[in-house]
Amino acid sequence: MTALPHDRTAYFISDGTGITAETFGMSLLSQFDDLKTRNVRLPFTDSPAKAHEAVARINLAAQNDGRRPLVFSTLANPEISGIVQTANAEYLDLIGTFVQRLEGELGRKASRGVGQFHRIKSPDAYQARIDAINFSLSHDDGQQHAELGTADVILVGVSRCGKTPTSLYLSIQHGIKAANYPLIPEDFDRMRLPEVLYQYKHKLFGLTITPERLHEVRSERRPDSRYASLENCRDEVRQAESMMRREGVSMLSTTTKSIEEIAATILTVIEMDDVVPPIV
Amino acid sequence: MTALPHDRTAYFISDGTGITAETFGMSLLSQFDDLKTRNVRLPFTDSPAKAHEAVARINLAAQNDGRRPLVFSTLANPEISGIVQTANAEYLDLIGTFVQRLEGELGRKASRGVGQFHRIKSPDAYQARIDAINFSLSHDDGQQHAELGTADVILVGVSRCGKTPTSLYLSIQHGIKAANYPLIPEDFDRMRLPEVLYQYKHKLFGLTITPERLHEVRSERRPDSRYASLENCRDEVRQAESMMRREGVSMLSTTTKSIEEIAATILTVIEMDDVVPPIV
Repeated sequence: MTALPHDRTAYFISDGTGITAETFGMSLLSQFDDLKTRNVRLPFTDSPAKAHEAVARINLAAQNDGRRPLVFSTLANPEISGIVQTANAEYLDLIGTFVQRLEGELGRKASRGVGQFHRIKSPDAYQARIDAINFSLSHDDGQQHAELGTADVILVGVSRCGKTPTSLYLSIQHGIKAANYPLIPEDFDRMRLPEVLYQYKHKLFGLTITPERLHEVRSERRPDSRYASLENCRDEVRQAESMMRREGVSMLSTTTKSIEEIAATILTVIEMDDVVPPIV
Repeated sequence: MTALPHDRTAYFISDGTGITAETFGMSLLSQFDDLKTRNVRLPFTDSPAKAHEAVARINLAAQNDGRRPLVFSTLANPEISGIVQTANAEYLDLIGTFVQRLEGELGRKASRGVGQFHRIKSPDAYQARIDAINFSLSHDDGQQHAELGTADVILVGVSRCGKTPTSLYLSIQHGIKAANYPLIPEDFDRMRLPEVLYQYKHKLFGLTITPERLHEVRSERRPDSRYASLENCRDEVRQAESMMRREGVSMLSTTTKSIEEIAATILTVIEMDDVVPPIV
C-alpha cells in the first residue's frame, strides 16, 4: 500500500448544516497531535436515500484508506442514524450520547427531531443578528457617527490592529452591534480620543498589537511606506497604548490571538450575553 | 418559591474560548422543546483558582434555582475538570467522553492539554482567513472588479436578498473568498448579467428571495419607496430568477434559511473544502 497523505478520513454528518458535527469533531481531533485526517462534510443527510449514499462513500474511503473512517454524527433521527451506523467506520453519536443523560436529569423526553439548531427559530432574533451585521459593516472604521449610541461595543485602536475582523465576527457570531473607530496620528498629536467617542466612553474597548507584527501586516498593504515602517508602527502603538491607559479604556493585544479568542475576551469584559443564540 | 423565568441554568465551561462548549451545548438543549435555560459562558477557565470560582457560581445558581444547573464542559485538564465536577450540577464531559473512544480506535493517547482548538495553530492558514475576510469586505456589492478572478465564489442576486451577510459568513467561518455582485434593473433591461461577470461565470452562485419577504426587508430601509414596493420587488425577483436560469447559474432561495444553511448549501454545491479548519 502506498503511503497516504492522511491517517484517517473523518466524516461530519448531520441532517442540518453539519456545523456542530464539524466544529465539535474538529475539536476532538485537535486533541490528537500529528493526526492527519481528510475531512469530509456530509450536511443535509435527511432521508434514508441520502443515508445510504453516505454509507457508500464511507465504505469506499475505508477501502481506499485501509483504515476505518471516523464518523462524527449529529443525526437525531433513529432511522437515518441506524443506516449510517451500518458503515464500516467508528461512529461517534455526538448528540444521542448526551441526550440520554439529559433526559434522565430533566425528566422529560427529547424531541429527537431532525437537527433544527441552525434553522431560524425566532425570526425576530434572526433579524436582530442580521441588523447587527449591517450595523458593524456600516460602522466599520469610523464611517458613521449618527448611530454610535446604539452600539454594544466600540473597538478602538491603530489602523490594521484587527478591529474590522473582530467587529464582524462579534456581529455574525454573537449578534453584537460592534462598531470600530481608528486611532490616528492626528489624535495622538491632539492627545485626545476622537471627540465623538467621549460620550460613549463606557462602550470603548481597545485593541493593540506589537509594533513588529503591525509592521508586517501594514507592509503587505503598503510596502516600503512610512505608514508601514517599523519606526512609525512603534510610535503609533506606543502613543495609542498610552492614550488608552490614560483614558481608562480596557485593552487587549491581538498579536497572537485568534478572532475567536479576542471576541470571547471582549464578551467577558463587557459582560454581554449573546443577543441571539450562538450560531457556531 | 417564586416562579423563575428559566427552568435551569446552563454553564458552558472551557479552558479556551468556550465556543465549542456553547455551540454543542446549545445544540443539545435545542433537542428539548420549551426548555428555558439561563445561559452562562465561563471561558478561559484554565487554573485551579478559576475552577473554584466556577464551582462557587454554579453552586449559587443551584441554590437560587432550586434545581441543579447543567454544566457543558470542554475542560481537558483532569485537575481543573476534577474541581468543577465537585459542584452541585449535572456535569457533561463533552470532550472526555469521546476522547476515550477515539484513543481506543486510533491506538494512541490524546494530548489532553488545555483546549487549543480556537488558538492560532498555523499562522499561514490564519492569515489566509483574515485575507478572505478582507477580500469579502472589499468585494461587497460589486465594489471592486480587479481581483474578482481570485474569488472562490461570486454571489449574485437582487439588492437585499442576503448576499452581504452570506459572503461575510463564508469568509469568517470558512476562509472562503466570497465576493458579491448585485443584479440591478439596468441589467434586466439589457437582459445581460453585468459584463464583468461573464468571464467568471463558473464562480457565480445566485441567491433569490420571495417578493413578499424582499418587500419587507427593503421597506425597513426605505419605507414607501418605489424600490421597496411589492410590485417592484415582484418585478425584480422575476427578472433576476429568469436571468439566472437563462445563464445557467445555480440558485438558492434565502427566504426561510439562516446564513449557516445558505453557506452550507453553497459549500456543497461549489464543492470546496474549508480553506482553514472551521472555527465555529
